[in-house]
Amino acid sequence: MSKLLTDLIEALRCLPGVGGKSAQRMAFHLLERDRERGMRLAHALEEAMQRVGNCSRCRNFSEDPVCPICASSSRDKQVLCVVESPTELAAIEQATGFRGQYFVLLGRLSPLDGLGPEELGLDLLAERLGSGEIEEMIIATNPTVEGEATAHYLAQLARAAGVKPSRLAHGVPLGGELEFVDRSTLAHAFGSRQTVR
Amino acid sequence: MSKLLTDLIEALRCLPGVGGKSAQRMAFHLLERDRERGMRLAHALEEAMQRVGNCSRCRNFSEDPVCPICASSSRDKQVLCVVESPTELAAIEQATGFRGQYFVLLGRLSPLDGLGPEELGLDLLAERLGSGEIEEMIIATNPTVEGEATAHYLAQLARAAGVKPSRLAHGVPLGGELEFVDRSTLAHAFGSRQTVR
Repeated sequence: MSKLLTDLIEALRCLPGVGGKSAQRMAFHLLERDRERGMRLAHALEEAMQRVGNCSRCRNFSEDPVCPICASSSRDKQVLCVVESPTELAAIEQATGFRGQYFVLLGRLSPLDGLGPEELGLDLLAERLGSGEIEEMIIATNPTVEGEATAHYLAQLARAAGVKPSRLAHGVPLGGELEFVDRSTLAHAFGSRQTVR
Repeated sequence: MSKLLTDLIEALRCLPGVGGKSAQRMAFHLLERDRERGMRLAHALEEAMQRVGNCSRCRNFSEDPVCPICASSSRDKQVLCVVESPTELAAIEQATGFRGQYFVLLGRLSPLDGLGPEELGLDLLAERLGSGEIEEMIIATNPTVEGEATAHYLAQLARAAGVKPSRLAHGVPLGGELEFVDRSTLAHAFGSRQTVR
């Protein structure tokens, strides 16, 4: 097979979920049918890889020094939602009607991996909490062991600054069947049952 | 979301089998973890889209005027395998021990789509058949209506040039269960049953 083609197939495998077979199918598809869009993808990749940095206020991905959400005058500056990564920020933006601002940790507390408060930008976060503008901090770290530990630390940070910390509710997912919900989620949902009014 | 990021997600959707969700996951993955490989993919794409053309002998993808298979002195020049597209050529190369040469139609006879003998390079094929070097032409078009019509046409072309045409065997796939083989394949396999020696 042509060397450039082999190189392309190999390079496509850097995409998550793409193995040898799919990479080959993608390469042939682009070459046979869609070279123009292939070129557009090459340019979009290059631009994004080189120019997307992090917002200086919230640490989310941004090509400008301050991202559109932080720069927006229509977002509520009194509520701050803290997430682990830009992926979770995007999920919350797409699913909820949240109109406050964000802070992205770009990781979670994990001393073994060398991720401490400094790497997560917690000095920057403490500064924002200390500004007196923020009333509530929604802690939306992932429900993993490290995420929970990070949440605990963040809650202390908020309280120290006189800001009310809150967490996402745990419970049975909508549309799921109880039979397939894992034990600990079910136990938690049972314990935190709510009175029907 | 950042404009460059939105552009990248949109551009990734040109890949077959990649929808909005996967495109977003791919973009975030590259930005968060693998910018270097993202850049490498951008370059591989650009190079391939711009420089991969077609071999002047067999019409397979190639960045050189003559592809490695046509240029190889160790391939058998007496057997020529005709396929519809480079994808099928790659499949045959990977699965079989075929050591002959190829001819790629880059399509199949389809008058309604404006694909006639000229578009499929059949003049080039006739020229090769007429050279007297080829003894057998293996017709490996797809087993579709148009593929079969193309195969029929190709067989005539071969016979006219005194070359023996052959086709891939049809039958029950290996490892399959008879119960799940489609009717026409089963009927064909039944009719073409072979004596066990």
